[in-house]
Amino acid sequence: MNILNEFLKDPQAFLVISGPCAVESEDQLKSVLDSPDAPSALRGGLYKMRTSPDSFQGLREEGAKLIAKLRQEHSFSFVTEISDPRQIETLDPITDMYQIGARNMYNYELLRELSVLGKPVLLKRAFSATIKEWLGSAQYLKDLGEEKIVLCERGIRSFEPELRNTLDLGSVIYLKENTNFKVLVDPSHAMGEAKYVERASLAAMAAGADGVIIESHPNPSLALSDAKQALSLGELSKLKHQLVKLADCLNKTLIH
Amino acid sequence: MNILNEFLKDPQAFLVISGPCAVESEDQLKSVLDSPDAPSALRGGLYKMRTSPDSFQGLREEGAKLIAKLRQEHSFSFVTEISDPRQIETLDPITDMYQIGARNMYNYELLRELSVLGKPVLLKRAFSATIKEWLGSAQYLKDLGEEKIVLCERGIRSFEPELRNTLDLGSVIYLKENTNFKVLVDPSHAMGEAKYVERASLAAMAAGADGVIIESHPNPSLALSDAKQALSLGELSKLKHQLVKLADCLNKTLIH
Amino acid sequence: MNILNEFLKDPQAFLVISGPCAVESEDQLKSVLDSPDAPSALRGGLYKMRTSPDSFQGLREEGAKLIAKLRQEHSFSFVTEISDPRQIETLDPITDMYQIGARNMYNYELLRELSVLGKPVLLKRAFSATIKEWLGSAQYLKDLGEEKIVLCERGIRSFEPELRNTLDLGSVIYLKENTNFKVLVDPSHAMGEAKYVERASLAAMAAGADGVIIESHPNPSLALSDAKQALSLGELSKLKHQLVKLADCLNKTLIH
Amino acid sequence: MNILNEFLKDPQAFLVISGPCAVESEDQLKSVLDSPDAPSALRGGLYKMRTSPDSFQGLREEGAKLIAKLRQEHSFSFVTEISDPRQIETLDPITDMYQIGARNMYNYELLRELSVLGKPVLLKRAFSATIKEWLGSAQYLKDLGEEKIVLCERGIRSFEPELRNTLDLGSVIYLKENTNFKVLVDPSHAMGEAKYVERASLAAMAAGADGVIIESHPNPSLALSDAKQALSLGELSKLKHQLVKLADCLNKTLIH
Repeated sequence: MNILNEFLKDPQAFLVISGPCAVESEDQLKSVLDSPDAPSALRGGLYKMRTSPDSFQGLREEGAKLIAKLRQEHSFSFVTEISDPRQIETLDPITDMYQIGARNMYNYELLRELSVLGKPVLLKRAFSATIKEWLGSAQYLKDLGEEKIVLCERGIRSFEPELRNTLDLGSVIYLKENTNFKVLVDPSHAMGEAKYVERASLAAMAAGADGVIIESHPNPSLALSDAKQALSLGELSKLKHQLVKLADCLNKTLIH
Repeated sequence: MNILNEFLKDPQAFLVISGPCAVESEDQLKSVLDSPDAPSALRGGLYKMRTSPDSFQGLREEGAKLIAKLRQEHSFSFVTEISDPRQIETLDPITDMYQIGARNMYNYELLRELSVLGKPVLLKRAFSATIKEWLGSAQYLKDLGEEKIVLCERGIRSFEPELRNTLDLGSVIYLKENTNFKVLVDPSHAMGEAKYVERASLAAMAAGADGVIIESHPNPSLALSDAKQALSLGELSKLKHQLVKLADCLNKTLIH
Repeated sequence: MNILNEFLKDPQAFLVISGPCAVESEDQLKSVLDSPDAPSALRGGLYKMRTSPDSFQGLREEGAKLIAKLRQEHSFSFVTEISDPRQIETLDPITDMYQIGARNMYNYELLRELSVLGKPVLLKRAFSATIKEWLGSAQYLKDLGEEKIVLCERGIRSFEPELRNTLDLGSVIYLKENTNFKVLVDPSHAMGEAKYVERASLAAMAAGADGVIIESHPNPSLALSDAKQALSLGELSKLKHQLVKLADCLNKTLIH
Repeated sequence: MNILNEFLKDPQAFLVISGPCAVESEDQLKSVLDSPDAPSALRGGLYKMRTSPDSFQGLREEGAKLIAKLRQEHSFSFVTEISDPRQIETLDPITDMYQIGARNMYNYELLRELSVLGKPVLLKRAFSATIKEWLGSAQYLKDLGEEKIVLCERGIRSFEPELRNTLDLGSVIYLKENTNFKVLVDPSHAMGEAKYVERASLAAMAAGADGVIIESHPNPSLALSDAKQALSLGELSKLKHQLVKLADCLNKTLIH
């Protein structure tokens, strides 16, 4: 968890979390972790929340074992979504930062449970949560201490059909001006297409965000979920290169 | 549960569920259950979902004991919200129909648990759920059988600030045309003010809804939550009178 | 204009305006005006507002001549959209009620012009106008006198893709409770499909609306615009029959 | 118009238009034009579009005379809103770029008129216009030639009440990827408060926008409209300084 601690303490840090939408196989994760630009902070869903019960629901407990194994061989912090308090037993040994997905931002019973575990929580904004409601959910985590609560804007729901969601960088600007929370941006879910992710990430940094969480995949076209928005590992390297340049200009330090 | 069974089987039935937002005290519930127009189907929240952790969170287990006691003295079906699988143990002995609130429509782990309990579930639409997502959540309940899944439109989130939510009767019309589910409407949350509830209820019936769920309170101004939108018991009686008249005209049978 | 005057003066009247989205030909209008259930208040667009300049823009001045001719042979009030002050010269001789479309609700210069013509104005709500903005636009018409300003809810823009727009009957309920304006509903544009129009019209009446404006066409599949939502003349007759029945129940008088 | 031509031809240019929401007086404009950081491209409304007819409607023809006078003494390009074709006669002698406000994006008759005047047009997005509708409106201007059509994102309408509008930088990213139009951003209307304008402007540049249009006022607290969102002249200078730094980093040239 070193790198996440470093991020949480450094006001100039800009964190890049990356990895696949869903953990799919050992091969998939090894491709990511052995790549030249392997993530220090790896994201990967084990328990997937899908609109249809017939869609891939994640590797679940089996995936947790895989992560445990990979942690012995590689050095990375692991960020993963939790959607039920009963998953804590499985997830806690392998998780450095819990992610609350958009669908669970209002799951106050779950937030209460996480508030006593002591690990940082990435709290995504619900699809149409007002900023006030989002901050209300953050209050359910207050026992963690303000510095371990990280908000994440991931695009809101609007009338616009061309893009998957509407990236609300105004909310980021508002939160950085009016609260002390770290704020990340998820440009992958906000934009919904890989080709828009770089521009959205740069804009997020310029808006004052403290980092981004990016979906990447060794072979995006084969991804079991969110294939359209995943960056290839090459695209991810290019993005990081652009972010480093902009960070220099804005006196930020990239952590990735 | 007789009255709910009757409702689920009769395509012409129009169900009126009513009662307080939150169960607050024995006196409160007795006032409701002893009133001339006492509800056959009583709603009342035990575990409350509130934006702020500092707001009243419900009587919880203590409230469940109160309901158990009142069920021995009065005849009513009980409809209550569940927000965590671990509440099943407390709620199952006293609940005839589980309510999934707007904040939990995407709580698929919870839906999976309810799908094996065999009791009907009232599935509210999330604040900005598309109809497709809503029907996706209903699929997580499919083991109950289609006839025990009751959808509930409760107003969606829009740009309009004058009303608490935007009542989407178009979704009710869509669902009645394209699915076999029962569809209720919650005019109290949709409109947010008691004076608008009657008109919204009549419109719901004319749109083809199969019922309404109404917040009422013996003394609305003292309600611990949602005070502004609760009908007094007198207003509720007047509403039922209007609904009976309209039901006659539309060949519906009011169950209340 | 007799029938519109009657409508404007009678608080119990429920007006049904119907006719084609766009005036297309003499044959088209004659089919409508010679049908058994010919409209007393005919709608028909001469100057069409289309998202693309390459779509059919209306018969314009030629269409106005056609209406003038038909008025000599048939008895009907004519309701048509105006989108530019320079159309007044052409439209005023043949128009009984001006319609301001959703795209022009904020066209204050145009509203100012209409406010001195003395004819009633049907003011549609813009795609995402707040109720306050809508009433603001009505104020630009105040010289007409409150009784000649008729508001029209036509569905607002939301995140929901299944239906063309989101019918906001809550706004109708709000306006009838808090203002003295007549309020119509346009279920054709709100729902976007013919099969949903009847239910939406009945719900509008039950919500307290003072009328509906319906798109109909002698042969919907051949309509040059909005084909999917136009009722056939047979469907329109059936709808009117249902509205008469509901009007009886609600003490309304149908004017059609 | 030299500076606007320069902007239209240079793909690396980043234009800063600034000035008051409404032209209020000669003193007001002179303060702006004599300031150390006087705008090369001045914005200023003469015909104001206000929700209420009782709000300040602009200096109108009198204001045009004032601009004509100031053009003889100062060097600036003038960008102003047009809301009715009949204003062309007054505006054309003093205007270098016409602005179509959000309320008139669908005013196709007005767009048709501007398409033959030959001057560049700044086409703001309507409050809830889809990108497709926005591009449809741009097509009404196509006779100007693609290079004279400048789109302007000014925040869309969403459910969020904390900020005036929801700045949709995703639309900017989409437009720069998929069209050849220049795209500006109006952070003043999008954010609605002066303190958020700098961050939003920087984010706009990083997202790929070609410029910003900023409301400034010699004394914001005295502004007759939009007082809350206007930058003081000092704040504007600071913003330009930040934009120059970021432009260097992103290989853009600031034109202001």
